Amino acid sequence: MNNKSEIKGKQINCLDKGFVRLVDFMGDDSSIVQSARVSYGEGTKTINEDRGLIRYLLRHKHTTPFEMVEFKFHIKLPIFIARQWIRHRTANVNEYSGRYSEMKDEFYLPDISQIRHQSTLNKQGRADEVLDPETSQEIIDKMQYIQKDLYNNYKEFLDEGLAREIARINLPLSNYTEWYWKIDLHNLFHFLRLRIDSHAQYEIRVYGEAMAEIIKEIVPLAWEAFEDYHLKSMYFSKMELEALKLILKGEKVENIPFEELGMKKREWDEFLIKVEQLS
Amino acid sequence: MNNKSEIKGKQINCLDKGFVRLVDFMGDDSSIVQSARVSYGEGTKTINEDRGLIRYLLRHKHTTPFEMVEFKFHIKLPIFIARQWIRHRTANVNEYSGRYSEMKDEFYLPDISQIRHQSTLNKQGRADEVLDPETSQEIIDKMQYIQKDLYNNYKEFLDEGLAREIARINLPLSNYTEWYWKIDLHNLFHFLRLRIDSHAQYEIRVYGEAMAEIIKEIVPLAWEAFEDYHLKSMYFSKMELEALKLILKGEKVENIPFEELGMKKREWDEFLIKVEQLS
Amino acid sequence: MNNKSEIKGKQINCLDKGFVRLVDFMGDDSSIVQSARVSYGEGTKTINEDRGLIRYLLRHKHTTPFEMVEFKFHIKLPIFIARQWIRHRTANVNEYSGRYSEMKDEFYLPDISQIRHQSTLNKQGRADEVLDPETSQEIIDKMQYIQKDLYNNYKEFLDEGLAREIARINLPLSNYTEWYWKIDLHNLFHFLRLRIDSHAQYEIRVYGEAMAEIIKEIVPLAWEAFEDYHLKSMYFSKMELEALKLILKGEKVENIPFEELGMKKREWDEFLIKVEQLS
Amino acid sequence: MNNKSEIKGKQINCLDKGFVRLVDFMGDDSSIVQSARVSYGEGTKTINEDRGLIRYLLRHKHTTPFEMVEFKFHIKLPIFIARQWIRHRTANVNEYSGRYSEMKDEFYLPDISQIRHQSTLNKQGRADEVLDPETSQEIIDKMQYIQKDLYNNYKEFLDEGLAREIARINLPLSNYTEWYWKIDLHNLFHFLRLRIDSHAQYEIRVYGEAMAEIIKEIVPLAWEAFEDYHLKSMYFSKMELEALKLILKGEKVENIPFEELGMKKREWDEFLIKVEQLS
Repeated sequence: MNNKSEIKGKQINCLDKGFVRLVDFMGDDSSIVQSARVSYGEGTKTINEDRGLIRYLLRHKHTTPFEMVEFKFHIKLPIFIARQWIRHRTANVNEYSGRYSEMKDEFYLPDISQIRHQSTLNKQGRADEVLDPETSQEIIDKMQYIQKDLYNNYKEFLDEGLAREIARINLPLSNYTEWYWKIDLHNLFHFLRLRIDSHAQYEIRVYGEAMAEIIKEIVPLAWEAFEDYHLKSMYFSKMELEALKLILKGEKVENIPFEELGMKKREWDEFLIKVEQLS
Repeated sequence: MNNKSEIKGKQINCLDKGFVRLVDFMGDDSSIVQSARVSYGEGTKTINEDRGLIRYLLRHKHTTPFEMVEFKFHIKLPIFIARQWIRHRTANVNEYSGRYSEMKDEFYLPDISQIRHQSTLNKQGRADEVLDPETSQEIIDKMQYIQKDLYNNYKEFLDEGLAREIARINLPLSNYTEWYWKIDLHNLFHFLRLRIDSHAQYEIRVYGEAMAEIIKEIVPLAWEAFEDYHLKSMYFSKMELEALKLILKGEKVENIPFEELGMKKREWDEFLIKVEQLS
Repeated sequence: MNNKSEIKGKQINCLDKGFVRLVDFMGDDSSIVQSARVSYGEGTKTINEDRGLIRYLLRHKHTTPFEMVEFKFHIKLPIFIARQWIRHRTANVNEYSGRYSEMKDEFYLPDISQIRHQSTLNKQGRADEVLDPETSQEIIDKMQYIQKDLYNNYKEFLDEGLAREIARINLPLSNYTEWYWKIDLHNLFHFLRLRIDSHAQYEIRVYGEAMAEIIKEIVPLAWEAFEDYHLKSMYFSKMELEALKLILKGEKVENIPFEELGMKKREWDEFLIKVEQLS
Repeated sequence: MNNKSEIKGKQINCLDKGFVRLVDFMGDDSSIVQSARVSYGEGTKTINEDRGLIRYLLRHKHTTPFEMVEFKFHIKLPIFIARQWIRHRTANVNEYSGRYSEMKDEFYLPDISQIRHQSTLNKQGRADEVLDPETSQEIIDKMQYIQKDLYNNYKEFLDEGLAREIARINLPLSNYTEWYWKIDLHNLFHFLRLRIDSHAQYEIRVYGEAMAEIIKEIVPLAWEAFEDYHLKSMYFSKMELEALKLILKGEKVENIPFEELGMKKREWDEFLIKVEQLS
């Protein structure tokens, strides 16, 4: 616990020019326990009992004690990621303003490993395979060329005296912005559950993982519980439970009439992936 | 009241390619009164008493009855406006996704009347004066050229098979998006107070005024009260009240030692504008 | 769909003197689909495709389209239930005020079937077994006597001219209050998941079930999906998945070393209940 | 600034048995400035400039930097006050549970100075005049007698084995509860504006004032600005501004035809009180 205050100011670089930096925080594992004990009217206990209580709370969806820990981050991120991020409403934000201040000459340029085809499975994502290196490099060069060109145009507009709030409208979504972002642990867990998931866009996942790295030093017991009961848990729908029953009775997976159980092919495929992880 | 349902579907065009359309709504002036009367334990009354009650509630910050009316809009707007708009967290949003779907070839191009210099008074806004017409036209032409170019690039990236979520990162903030936006009357009033204010960016004010046009047909009494007690009201700080006292005692404005009252020059100038409106 | 508007005003009585009444609503299954299609940029489809889309959205936690449906209820409930209910913050409330108005002579008196011992398993609940009928009746009689006495005292205080806001402080938590309560479908699902659960207090479950009865007529497809993917689903922690793997490999449940898998006895007992439901 | 950490743990007793205790906090005046400067892209400045910036932000409703300061209180309060308090939804709460734990033998008994008649002016409040001392003492004695009796009954129910969640339903609203309550500075200002106002119930005002005492040590500049621009400010409706214009033109107050200006008698009386404060 001694080194908790050292973690203030910890910064993890993200993507090519972004970062997550912990500006401040309030509370740790012991604060979760402390506020939970208000509900139960009991005093503080041993570390071991603290761990048990935290796990009990998370398992049984007693979420309010997790709201008692607060984090404040300074984050630098591309605008298209900021647009996904801001959809999480239960947080406080103070963003750099392109009306007050000049936008900086900093744009996200994807690493060559991220230049990928549209996924054929996931309508909203990229494929696992990369493009051929030459095409990829051409795309990146093209992107960089566009970004330079756009920033030059922006500066020219400003030089002509055009108001900043107008001059910036053709800046691209790859332009970096920054903000202070404050959130409690319960809502951060919710954010992370969605944003470090494999369906989230790679570029926001990078930020989610960076924040996870930082907070697990502050709330190690809560983080462990979050992994055991959320990140590494699995959930089965009513129909999947019917299928699971049949498997437990000895039925071969390939013989299960999934359509009779009320599942479509796509849903069934999702179930097969779960079953594979259980073998 | 008969024509209340006719207003569903009402659309007002905004900027060059955007719009606000009322998709649905729940409640009207009578719903405000109805829920307020639960608090007071009284039955329904005459229209005139309804008006009085609504005005009383708004004047005394009894805000919960205004939360009982709900509006759902379909809105098409440039991304840089969407970024300001989304900061209002007490609303529900479902936005077009550039990860799922191809972005459309639609970009905001300001009217020549909006090509203005940076304001020297308002660090975040544009000046009242326009640029000379030739420069303005050049800027607009340049903007349009950039937008076409960027969209061509985007399409080329897509044609090469690049994932949509990557291909779109260099699209500009002037690109149009659209969303469904649902909000209650109390929170919409708050939104409008900030966004139809003269300090708000012109482009969002246009949308604010369009929504105001629409809702005043649904809640005419609440709208009237909102104008009388908020939009057309004026507020004076402790220091301004001291100055006002002096004026009421016959002191000439130019003789008031505003620094002794605790005001800086800038704040005093803001007060002078208020005083002028009172003469 | 024709009878959707008939459901407005539907009332279900709850407990001895309470009720849930649907005052108004906005949207239905088709509104969920409509707003989701804004994200995907596609037009309306067949009912069958609507059902598929709604199920897909709920399964993949695309929650925003469910926020586009709104319900407004008039509810009469005992104060101790109101205190649990109000903890759900993402709703709008307008409550009867004991400062403005006289509280009514209506108190919750439990049915004899609800006079139960403290549960030995569930620290926060009542046991399954009832008390002996005589003791139960005595308790109920005593409760009723107290309630009458307290109301008489309250009236006496009022008769002496004591301010309502003071006179009411000794009224009991069993006193009925009423409110208007407005919430969107996504947040109502969250409320119901917690409040029709067997761990919720019986008296709030009754209200949860009444609201469920009402809304399933308005959003039958969303309700069906909610049952299949939430209410009747099951979730397994990391440790439970390890145990499930062993069972699928043929290990007997009673031979599984649950402590080595990281589970405490209590957690293991929770798992055994799940396993039983799978057989 | 050195003694900021000493204030942690500060407790102020409220009413007869309650208290407000500062458990923890994150940030101070400098955090407001720090996050505001992210928007403007500038570094830190002198204290004097900090004061100016904080005042500017509050005056111009730039509220997000004030959300960057967070307070956590431990509060013990009567249930009828908890019921008013909880209506503020933008806070985190963890309350003592009467389902898990036995309620304590602690009840709010008003001071004799608070035994007052119903106000004839304010439908929701008490009068300024006290009752005669004898009647008041009788009322207090009666209240205390009831509270003792109710607690005895509660204990008897528990002794008979009745479940806590049932046994407590006849406990009165004067029973003390406690909770952890976490809120940011912007939302706390909003809470205080409503709850230390003269229209708020006396018993919640006491708590509001206690919290104000505590936080003004942590954010002295923000508090000063809050007083100057909110607590000690005055607001005039459109109609009141019309009247004010007439007064500034030399019209006598008693000659102003307030009904022609659109005001009712009650509203006009409210205006006269404001005018008196200006003389």
